[in-house]
Amino acid sequence: MEQYDFGIVGLGVMGRNLLLNMADHGFAVAGLDLDEEKANSLEKEAAEGHKIKGFTSAEAFVKSLRNPKAIMLLVPAGRPVDAAIASLLPFLDSGDIVVDGGNSYFPDTDRRFSELAEQHIHFFGMGISGGEKGARFGPSMMPGGDAQAYERLRPVFEAIAAKVDGEPCVTYLGKGSAGNYVKMVHNGIEYGIMQLIAETYDLMKRGLGYGDGQIQETFEAWNNSELHSFLIEITAKLLAKKDEETGKQLVTLISDRARSKGTGKWTSQNAMDLQAPVPVIDVAVLMRDISKYKEERIEASKSLIWKGEKDTVETSSDVLKNAFYFAMINTYAQGMAQLTVASKEYGYGLNLEEVAKIWRGGCIIRALCLEDFRQAYLKNPELPNLLLDEKIGESLVNTQSDIREVVKIAVDKGIPAPAYMAALGYFDAYRSETLSTNVIQAQRDFFGAHQFERIDKEGVFHAQWE
Amino acid sequence: MEQYDFGIVGLGVMGRNLLLNMADHGFAVAGLDLDEEKANSLEKEAAEGHKIKGFTSAEAFVKSLRNPKAIMLLVPAGRPVDAAIASLLPFLDSGDIVVDGGNSYFPDTDRRFSELAEQHIHFFGMGISGGEKGARFGPSMMPGGDAQAYERLRPVFEAIAAKVDGEPCVTYLGKGSAGNYVKMVHNGIEYGIMQLIAETYDLMKRGLGYGDGQIQETFEAWNNSELHSFLIEITAKLLAKKDEETGKQLVTLISDRARSKGTGKWTSQNAMDLQAPVPVIDVAVLMRDISKYKEERIEASKSLIWKGEKDTVETSSDVLKNAFYFAMINTYAQGMAQLTVASKEYGYGLNLEEVAKIWRGGCIIRALCLEDFRQAYLKNPELPNLLLDEKIGESLVNTQSDIREVVKIAVDKGIPAPAYMAALGYFDAYRSETLSTNVIQAQRDFFGAHQFERIDKEGVFHAQWE
Repeated sequence: MEQYDFGIVGLGVMGRNLLLNMADHGFAVAGLDLDEEKANSLEKEAAEGHKIKGFTSAEAFVKSLRNPKAIMLLVPAGRPVDAAIASLLPFLDSGDIVVDGGNSYFPDTDRRFSELAEQHIHFFGMGISGGEKGARFGPSMMPGGDAQAYERLRPVFEAIAAKVDGEPCVTYLGKGSAGNYVKMVHNGIEYGIMQLIAETYDLMKRGLGYGDGQIQETFEAWNNSELHSFLIEITAKLLAKKDEETGKQLVTLISDRARSKGTGKWTSQNAMDLQAPVPVIDVAVLMRDISKYKEERIEASKSLIWKGEKDTVETSSDVLKNAFYFAMINTYAQGMAQLTVASKEYGYGLNLEEVAKIWRGGCIIRALCLEDFRQAYLKNPELPNLLLDEKIGESLVNTQSDIREVVKIAVDKGIPAPAYMAALGYFDAYRSETLSTNVIQAQRDFFGAHQFERIDKEGVFHAQWE
Repeated sequence: MEQYDFGIVGLGVMGRNLLLNMADHGFAVAGLDLDEEKANSLEKEAAEGHKIKGFTSAEAFVKSLRNPKAIMLLVPAGRPVDAAIASLLPFLDSGDIVVDGGNSYFPDTDRRFSELAEQHIHFFGMGISGGEKGARFGPSMMPGGDAQAYERLRPVFEAIAAKVDGEPCVTYLGKGSAGNYVKMVHNGIEYGIMQLIAETYDLMKRGLGYGDGQIQETFEAWNNSELHSFLIEITAKLLAKKDEETGKQLVTLISDRARSKGTGKWTSQNAMDLQAPVPVIDVAVLMRDISKYKEERIEASKSLIWKGEKDTVETSSDVLKNAFYFAMINTYAQGMAQLTVASKEYGYGLNLEEVAKIWRGGCIIRALCLEDFRQAYLKNPELPNLLLDEKIGESLVNTQSDIREVVKIAVDKGIPAPAYMAALGYFDAYRSETLSTNVIQAQRDFFGAHQFERIDKEGVFHAQWE
């Protein structure tokens, strides 16, 4: 009987493509799905020379794998993950490995990690980014769990991962839920940059009066500059897409009610728990929410009129480009600062140079600037915030006049640019030696006797304000 | 043996002052504290004619109350509340009432409500605002629980509450955790307005070069205008306070590391769960967080320089005042829109006219504008957002050029004004019939096959983008 190197549970889009990717690299692989059709069709998709087998029985599937067994789950987050683990457990032995490859909420991963550790099973939470195409030809993968056990997984993961300069976009990230956490923040950054692109599109269209073609060409040009990135690239491509029926630009026919799956929200909510501010991500989450209030917005558009709407404003596309660069760098900086705080709080032991490294390829937020971040963390592994890196700081200082101009254009025209504003507000707050929050401390002591600290002596104080 | 009308557990600042307030109004009241000194000193604080008694035994305390018993807890949120309930439970009878008067997290209130309902005990969660002085002479109170059982509490609460035009600042708000939820959002709005005041102070000081005296006088003048409110009033007062030792303005000696107790954060996190955006509150929460990164900010202030910092800008204080008005109204509107969504989601059955009514006096966010909000909800109880009220909308339309000018001044000078920006960004997004979030939907379908809706036909669609 054939012994398979690796097994995957859940043969949907991601699971099937990851198995085929593994088979491409010479691994013998097995898939499990309770849906007989999916299990059977897997083998039909296999190319010549692929060692690949579909199962519908958990027992037969697990027994087909070589020891220690390595199994990855690609099922929806939440209860399906627990159900899948329960179905495998009777057939697993001490030292076997279960990897959750979905977007699980990180506290769930910590719970599963502990539960399975009691049974001497190694559990990994691993974020995977890159979508269908990434899964098939090279994703970015963010695994967290037991460092020793990772050695069993390493050859498979390094083989199938995206490569940048020959280096695989996967590495062991840290303990427990480190992998899911890093993927959550990856998605938060993704939300932020997508919102920035949407605002940029709006500024071009309603603000500067660019035609559809000019907008498309501008994004295409930006993708061949220091802004080179997956999200700018697909924006240029999607803006070129015509609707087949009407011949109109397809994006203009798409509803503005934006949907989400919750990972951006988790990032923002957890950032608040950690007191690690990510304002651009917060705005990205809430703009998707505001987009849902369509009827209220239609009503408001009739009464809340701004006379500056029709004024003509002008600026060069380079100003917009520099402003985007500034805001984008701030978004990454906020997310990576959150990772720094989380790593201490949760004991992950993250190495941010490696996080930047594996984000350079395969994933949705891959971008040229990731190499700059990597260099910054290489130079100073303890860097608390990318804004404090000399080179990155300089690039922001040099582009700040451009984002200031763009925010003022948005304000004058009445176009919402809250993510640009949040990036600039963060920058100006972060570079303020003294903030006016002393007023807040005084107010709190005034009405609630919450006490305050002083700048001229140690201790906590309460004043008789009246 | 004397039968007492009402009992309070926890004789700290709030509990003691509420009991004295009740005694002022002729109620016979009992207090329980395990700390003998607190229990004894209560009676010493009583004035002539007060019927007031301190206990250290839960059994004796409960037995001294008339039936059905009404007991309020004023102990720290979390486990102390559960412990206090457990200590009373053996002596309670069917139909008795327990009120939690602390800032409990609303899901805890729902749990306790269900647990006590099984024992036929009525549980109320009630937010109380107004601090020490409010507790003694008239707080705003936000009770939620069983409507019938509220009748037992009503005479006491209406007697001790703050009064506005003769009307008490307390009313039955709704089922389950309605009271704690309304108080949570009250505190979120409080965070937002405090942050706006802090930014205004910074804009006056670093932006417009106002002297300390001029800033104080401006806030004092504002308090005698349509901005009349408790938070503006205490800001004017605290800015007048001199440090006794140094003779300097005390606020300038207070550390800018702002603290918080978490209710603002809960408001923002829950708003994200409900998809009911409250961007000014989000910013207020995160600015307190940024204030804690003092060492990083000092370092950043040395390298991230903005040349516009020293430019002179000018504007009239009326522009600033109108901008503050605009941002303040937006903050209330966001919080009250969150209440509207929460009321549907959690089945509270809130009446926002009554919420506005009881916030007019006693509480930290009391302000002249609450009467306008009350009128708006009186005119249209189904109003989804205050921005859609004709009168309020008009006042925003008329002041929007001022907030636009103030945001541009902040941008030019490099002064962080993220709460002002969030208020304006919210306004411009809310009044946009069409947002650019269609681009986000296209991106999501491009990389994740997440599908989209169209504006020209029903259904969900997926495009072959490449």
